Amino acid sequence: MAEISNKFISAESIAKHSTRESCWIIVHGNVYDVTDFLDDHPGGPNIILKYAGKDATEEYDPIHPPDAITTHLPRDKHLGKVSPGTVAKVAKTVSPEEAARLERIKNKPPLDEILNLHDFETIAKEVMAPKAWAYYSSAADDEITHRENHTAYHRVWFRPRVMRDVSKVDFSTKILGQKSSMPLYITATALGKLGHPDGEVNLTRAAGKYGVIQMIPTLASCSFDEIMDAANPGQVQFMQLYVNNNKEITKRIVQHAEKRGIKGLFITVDAPQLGRREKDMRMKFEDNAQVQIGDSNVDRSQGAARAISSFIDPSLSWKDLPWFKSITKMPIILKGVQCWEDALLALESGCQGIVLSNHGGRQLSHSRSSIEVLVEVVSKFKEKNLWPCQNFEIYVDGGVRRATDVLKAIALGATAVGVGRAFLYAYSSYGQEGIDKALQILHDEMEMNMRLLGARTISEVVPEMVDATSLTSHACPPPDQLYMSTSDPLQRAALKTVAIKAKL
Amino acid sequence: MAEISNKFISAESIAKHSTRESCWIIVHGNVYDVTDFLDDHPGGPNIILKYAGKDATEEYDPIHPPDAITTHLPRDKHLGKVSPGTVAKVAKTVSPEEAARLERIKNKPPLDEILNLHDFETIAKEVMAPKAWAYYSSAADDEITHRENHTAYHRVWFRPRVMRDVSKVDFSTKILGQKSSMPLYITATALGKLGHPDGEVNLTRAAGKYGVIQMIPTLASCSFDEIMDAANPGQVQFMQLYVNNNKEITKRIVQHAEKRGIKGLFITVDAPQLGRREKDMRMKFEDNAQVQIGDSNVDRSQGAARAISSFIDPSLSWKDLPWFKSITKMPIILKGVQCWEDALLALESGCQGIVLSNHGGRQLSHSRSSIEVLVEVVSKFKEKNLWPCQNFEIYVDGGVRRATDVLKAIALGATAVGVGRAFLYAYSSYGQEGIDKALQILHDEMEMNMRLLGARTISEVVPEMVDATSLTSHACPPPDQLYMSTSDPLQRAALKTVAIKAKL
Amino acid sequence: MAEISNKFISAESIAKHSTRESCWIIVHGNVYDVTDFLDDHPGGPNIILKYAGKDATEEYDPIHPPDAITTHLPRDKHLGKVSPGTVAKVAKTVSPEEAARLERIKNKPPLDEILNLHDFETIAKEVMAPKAWAYYSSAADDEITHRENHTAYHRVWFRPRVMRDVSKVDFSTKILGQKSSMPLYITATALGKLGHPDGEVNLTRAAGKYGVIQMIPTLASCSFDEIMDAANPGQVQFMQLYVNNNKEITKRIVQHAEKRGIKGLFITVDAPQLGRREKDMRMKFEDNAQVQIGDSNVDRSQGAARAISSFIDPSLSWKDLPWFKSITKMPIILKGVQCWEDALLALESGCQGIVLSNHGGRQLSHSRSSIEVLVEVVSKFKEKNLWPCQNFEIYVDGGVRRATDVLKAIALGATAVGVGRAFLYAYSSYGQEGIDKALQILHDEMEMNMRLLGARTISEVVPEMVDATSLTSHACPPPDQLYMSTSDPLQRAALKTVAIKAKL
Amino acid sequence: MAEISNKFISAESIAKHSTRESCWIIVHGNVYDVTDFLDDHPGGPNIILKYAGKDATEEYDPIHPPDAITTHLPRDKHLGKVSPGTVAKVAKTVSPEEAARLERIKNKPPLDEILNLHDFETIAKEVMAPKAWAYYSSAADDEITHRENHTAYHRVWFRPRVMRDVSKVDFSTKILGQKSSMPLYITATALGKLGHPDGEVNLTRAAGKYGVIQMIPTLASCSFDEIMDAANPGQVQFMQLYVNNNKEITKRIVQHAEKRGIKGLFITVDAPQLGRREKDMRMKFEDNAQVQIGDSNVDRSQGAARAISSFIDPSLSWKDLPWFKSITKMPIILKGVQCWEDALLALESGCQGIVLSNHGGRQLSHSRSSIEVLVEVVSKFKEKNLWPCQNFEIYVDGGVRRATDVLKAIALGATAVGVGRAFLYAYSSYGQEGIDKALQILHDEMEMNMRLLGARTISEVVPEMVDATSLTSHACPPPDQLYMSTSDPLQRAALKTVAIKAKL
Repeated sequence: MAEISNKFISAESIAKHSTRESCWIIVHGNVYDVTDFLDDHPGGPNIILKYAGKDATEEYDPIHPPDAITTHLPRDKHLGKVSPGTVAKVAKTVSPEEAARLERIKNKPPLDEILNLHDFETIAKEVMAPKAWAYYSSAADDEITHRENHTAYHRVWFRPRVMRDVSKVDFSTKILGQKSSMPLYITATALGKLGHPDGEVNLTRAAGKYGVIQMIPTLASCSFDEIMDAANPGQVQFMQLYVNNNKEITKRIVQHAEKRGIKGLFITVDAPQLGRREKDMRMKFEDNAQVQIGDSNVDRSQGAARAISSFIDPSLSWKDLPWFKSITKMPIILKGVQCWEDALLALESGCQGIVLSNHGGRQLSHSRSSIEVLVEVVSKFKEKNLWPCQNFEIYVDGGVRRATDVLKAIALGATAVGVGRAFLYAYSSYGQEGIDKALQILHDEMEMNMRLLGARTISEVVPEMVDATSLTSHACPPPDQLYMSTSDPLQRAALKTVAIKAKL
Repeated sequence: MAEISNKFISAESIAKHSTRESCWIIVHGNVYDVTDFLDDHPGGPNIILKYAGKDATEEYDPIHPPDAITTHLPRDKHLGKVSPGTVAKVAKTVSPEEAARLERIKNKPPLDEILNLHDFETIAKEVMAPKAWAYYSSAADDEITHRENHTAYHRVWFRPRVMRDVSKVDFSTKILGQKSSMPLYITATALGKLGHPDGEVNLTRAAGKYGVIQMIPTLASCSFDEIMDAANPGQVQFMQLYVNNNKEITKRIVQHAEKRGIKGLFITVDAPQLGRREKDMRMKFEDNAQVQIGDSNVDRSQGAARAISSFIDPSLSWKDLPWFKSITKMPIILKGVQCWEDALLALESGCQGIVLSNHGGRQLSHSRSSIEVLVEVVSKFKEKNLWPCQNFEIYVDGGVRRATDVLKAIALGATAVGVGRAFLYAYSSYGQEGIDKALQILHDEMEMNMRLLGARTISEVVPEMVDATSLTSHACPPPDQLYMSTSDPLQRAALKTVAIKAKL
Repeated sequence: MAEISNKFISAESIAKHSTRESCWIIVHGNVYDVTDFLDDHPGGPNIILKYAGKDATEEYDPIHPPDAITTHLPRDKHLGKVSPGTVAKVAKTVSPEEAARLERIKNKPPLDEILNLHDFETIAKEVMAPKAWAYYSSAADDEITHRENHTAYHRVWFRPRVMRDVSKVDFSTKILGQKSSMPLYITATALGKLGHPDGEVNLTRAAGKYGVIQMIPTLASCSFDEIMDAANPGQVQFMQLYVNNNKEITKRIVQHAEKRGIKGLFITVDAPQLGRREKDMRMKFEDNAQVQIGDSNVDRSQGAARAISSFIDPSLSWKDLPWFKSITKMPIILKGVQCWEDALLALESGCQGIVLSNHGGRQLSHSRSSIEVLVEVVSKFKEKNLWPCQNFEIYVDGGVRRATDVLKAIALGATAVGVGRAFLYAYSSYGQEGIDKALQILHDEMEMNMRLLGARTISEVVPEMVDATSLTSHACPPPDQLYMSTSDPLQRAALKTVAIKAKL
Repeated sequence: MAEISNKFISAESIAKHSTRESCWIIVHGNVYDVTDFLDDHPGGPNIILKYAGKDATEEYDPIHPPDAITTHLPRDKHLGKVSPGTVAKVAKTVSPEEAARLERIKNKPPLDEILNLHDFETIAKEVMAPKAWAYYSSAADDEITHRENHTAYHRVWFRPRVMRDVSKVDFSTKILGQKSSMPLYITATALGKLGHPDGEVNLTRAAGKYGVIQMIPTLASCSFDEIMDAANPGQVQFMQLYVNNNKEITKRIVQHAEKRGIKGLFITVDAPQLGRREKDMRMKFEDNAQVQIGDSNVDRSQGAARAISSFIDPSLSWKDLPWFKSITKMPIILKGVQCWEDALLALESGCQGIVLSNHGGRQLSHSRSSIEVLVEVVSKFKEKNLWPCQNFEIYVDGGVRRATDVLKAIALGATAVGVGRAFLYAYSSYGQEGIDKALQILHDEMEMNMRLLGARTISEVVPEMVDATSLTSHACPPPDQLYMSTSDPLQRAALKTVAIKAKL
């Protein structure tokens, strides 16, 4: 990490550099000249100009890893440290909306009134900052794939077995050879500090406590090492990788991860470009509307997500796999596979697994749910006598809210299920205790449903226990909310106005 | 018809017979002693007791054919005529609901603002007396079959042909060898005066004007002869028959109809007992609630429909067909067939046709739509090399609102389509002009859609012009409204009350 | 049953034992020291502490059989009887919600305005105590299986036959060789006194009156003998059994039942652990919220259901069947079978029947409806030449509201149908008269629908009379209410606020 | 074009001719005697009589091409020019509804807040004149086909490929051999000036700027030459043709188009008669209601659409094709084909292509979506070894809102997709900048989705990338809004009124 100059600069001096022509900002007490960087900033120059000559730490923190600024800004732009005591405390004004939100936070129900994962989402929507909510909850285009992810599980029904001694049930399993207390893991999601100041570290701690595995995201708000350091001794962690344009950076990241003990490298393959998340994009308008900088040429069409992702390499291809194998001995799993053809290619290419995923519905609209793709892949692998696979595991993620969802995926052939947003909502509403509770709920649901299903171990959760024949039916897709709210319903014949009034 | 005594009785004297022990009523100026008849009255005694000692004509008229009382009451109970001038005009009080309805009637939109058959229903609901609306619009149990009748047509889609010279289209046809200007007829429906004082005669006149055929109902409010007399010279009419317990009565009715020139006898076979129409039944409670006679033993569980139908013979069976053929030369059509097995029996029994019908959804709940049954019957007949039939025609009724519905039925093999409620709504809202308009709309829609379909004559409306493959899919049946309105949706986690208030 | 000490204790003395350290309560005039039992109480200590030093009878009664306390509390904790006249009448304060409910009870519609089983549920929801409503109406997880139970029947449609002499229809049948006036029975449901002070005895009396069979639940509020004693001479009754951890207790229960004349032993096999019923669980929060004992470590996550079920043996398995046969000669039926494999095992194990059931949707979420499982079982049995079965009957329960539902199940192969909640709602709203009415409605519907179906006897209700081909379609499962109410719909582009206001 | 007399006439003199007996109007400063033309006016006489003796230009402009009046009115009825300065400026009164609309226009969100094509429709609905909105947005009958067009795309799901180098994607293509920057074109829609004073020329300019092709409509508000003149040098344009009753007129139009450089002749074959668009028709009532001319015999049942289409030849047939080929060398494409049989006939008749289209749902109700028909045609052509076609292209239109829709059509075999209403809404809300933005959005979405799909060129968008198996499922057709809003839901049992009030 780059060293920072030790020169002290007064807040007064800094305040003079508050224009596009000369723009200094303070982050974590350090002073930076970002004038030349303004146009390169992935989030656009305006958001920086709001803080020109001022302390930008609070805005900076949730959406950048701590070392982002030192990594991206040339050394000579690190001007020094702000003279202590010279920064005036800003009297913050609280908008009525924000005041109402703070009031709602005070009135959260106690955690023991939370009964299921939906409840966390309900409370999170009430208590999260609107921008954070928009970033976490948004999905691509009309969000139809996002809703399909959840809905698809409801087209799978159980065929439980009875009269089996289920006094003891054990749903622990192995994922990539690593022990897990449940057949699920915490999947990677970006910008963890948007929901809670401790960010991804919340997940690490709860994962350690409950014996589940966390997959660390490339776009974490906490630095990779902070997250690793938060783990218990021996706690297993995986890493999700957005492949960087710059191979050297990728290599450095991967090898550092391996050195720190990461047990599986999940390379994201469904995001050569980040999807349009319009809820997130609309949020930016509101933000800008308040700022009124008046620069109508700013490209507002991006949202937080794209802003931070411009480094991702769109040229990633099957040809790059040997190189990955040459730089690491970690198992390589492709995250974002969506059809049997690519599943087969991954197997043939020597990967150790795949995550069937559509990125939580945030990438290609009208991608199928992973549970539907799972059935396709397993069926095709069976047809080709490749099932059950040796040294090749299949995971699914997206839409999981109940242990019954997990069990359906396991019955249909998945080794484990990734859960993302649900945990974000859990800690965004209740901090780490929220994730503890979420894991406890899933644990309780798993135990009960294993019993009710008549399965004592994960290996007894077999395909015959589910009926998935309706899974491929898309006769009633999730509704297109924009279309429906815009569509103008036909009007009936109406009485003359007078009569209608008389009736009311 | 029985002769009425010519004795004159003063209204004052009649008024003394106003109890259950001695109950006289006036109908059309005649005085009847109905004391002994009270318990036999199909509609129950209470409704009569409301008018004990008074003039009951207004209540009597819409739900009885004119000759009902003279037919059913023994001769000696016909006491005489009310002395002219002795009946005091009752100052009617108008309830606020009724006042609002009268106001709505005044504000009906002009007829040329009515664009389709739905519009008549919309206006009829506003302007009809609640009891009449309940009787016409109600259907069996949860009314699911009633809605399925309409919905099923929407699972059939067109495969129109283009580049055909459609400057002239002709959609006239023959039904039982009789000319019809369109492939549809006015089907039989009961109690026509509930909607309009002229009752079924409205239909007769419009049918004559537009060259379509009316099927005269057994349970008409007008007498059979009134309806026949209202026809133009040469105007074709059919008759619908509820078979009476008493074969002699049936014989008399049938032979009288033949003598009067009826061209087809449609025997109802789906109503050995009339269905439960709960909307109709709830209406009776309201009525009774106002009366407050306080007799809680009255059987309120019947509704208008059942009240007037106790004479229908539940023993009617295939064995009775030869007898029917022995008493008439009219073509015999069975109305209410609902599966191919019975369609085949009808054909083999020498009937001239069948109406695939579930009685407008008013009889057996979860009966299939007639359009679905049509596909089944035609397919089975083809399989048995019975298609196209000789001297055997298939009609369907139920749920038709648009000429496109008619054309779908024709394409799938029907000779014609029966339309019932839509015409009732038309005259209940606008009198005979309403039916004229309804027929005009259907005529216009037929012409346009024949053109758009690429069919110049009815014989060019072929099976290949429709795709009915989704017709048998009942994945999304019409919703169960009672269940859904009673069902208690799950509640989410809630903020403490204070916060919720703060938010509002 | 244990003997109670005859010592008299004054209410004043009892009132001193009102703490966790020394907790006495009064039940039915007897005094018990429950201090040591507090932590073993399945419902948690708080609910008892509310009544420490006081009379707990009113709270105790609906959720415990009368002998529960004497059975579970050691003999020496039965301290004696409360001195008559020393218990001060508590001036109850009535909450505004409760006052409104009492007002609603006063305004129930008269029973003859109840037209169908839905109506009982509608009224019950208005007039029942919220906790009782929550316990009866709740189901597992997202209650999707609960709603599917009802909805599934709507994917089955009739193919009625016409022109059959249906002047007489007879729908009486035999269940396990016992006469029943209809092909349905009253199935076992727990905690009957929650809905009405007479509890299950209401059902016994109505069953006797209408010639139907009641299945007595293990978790009845009335004692087993009270229920048996309420039956008419010769009245047939079945018994539902939750198998106890303690085989001796089970043996005692079973053999006592046989001695008392029970004609069928229905062993519940779908409840090794009771399901999560979140509506019930949320209700507990409200209750606790009012108590404010401030003990946040109490496990609130259980609800009434689980509290009373901890004795159920989760190890019950096929190996236990011979033992059951060794202790009783009653026919043994397995209640809760959900796939053909277990149906076959039950047949091969010498059971006399099975109830295809998902426990009213209260156990495993996304279990299929019993009507769907029925089709699967019968089809598989036919394939294996096991159909029709000898000495093996199949019943279904769950979701039945109409006689048409019953007839569909019979047509598809069921011997009879169990109805549970509908009768609970009937007596919770109208007492025993409610059940009488419910049975009368079902009787009337059966008679009418047999006629409309063209079936004169139960044996004429054949598979060809239904079209069940859409039954396995789960393209449109019941909606996930929590998900949908939490899900954030996409927003459209919006006019600037000013304009929107101008428009309003 | 006819020459106009140069005589000057004072506004005062003109004002005297304000009756049905003598009716003069001013259009673009010219004076016309339309007395004899009143009854021939396709829009009816009333609309003209509103302007009798006055300036009708404002009403005339959006719904007539500039030369309509001079073409249709005999030369001697062109009376001269209005004397400058004699026309008094009319003080227009603005209705409250119109005032609110003008206010809404002021408050349109800035164009950069428009995120997708739905947004244009949302804003257009707010800011367009009601008549214009009704004309553009209306569709045939119950508008079910209109909604199906959009919905059908949602039954097609993607099977994207990953790990392909998508750093460069190229989605340019050729349509009829002409370059297009995207696989879509601007399809023909009538009466462009209803939405914006520049009418179709808006489209021409944007098309030129973004390298897409515009199809010029016969019923344009701008004249054909105005539109041609607005194009850049070399800009490709197609022409849509309604075939005129008068072959000479057709010939003149076609040959003029060819001379001006039109590259493809799209003959509309699905409109021998224009469909009933009831929203449009209801709008006319409102209009007339305000005028109150009191002539109740006016035929109000037509709407704007039919009014202007009476010249279309309903006798157009396959036999006419050779004649078309004899008068032009332009490629001939049939627009409005809706089944494989006609697609094959078009191929065999030597056409260069077809547009699978149901005219935006504005013609035959319950026509299938073009995307569904596309699958049928391609499958049949494959079966007949006609696929891929030589010199025969297939286009689809209707319901497209997203680039994903376009890509689905391309994957399933379409060469390009026509987009109509979406562009109308774009310029009706934001003028030409709106279309620029719309094309930019589509461009961005295309680029992103090509990447996410794993396709680098249009030829890599293959059938295996979509799952269209649910496309033919019509189990859940778009709801029938009129039926549903008219249908009377069943009522539950109700508490007596008092209690209900108490509860509220």
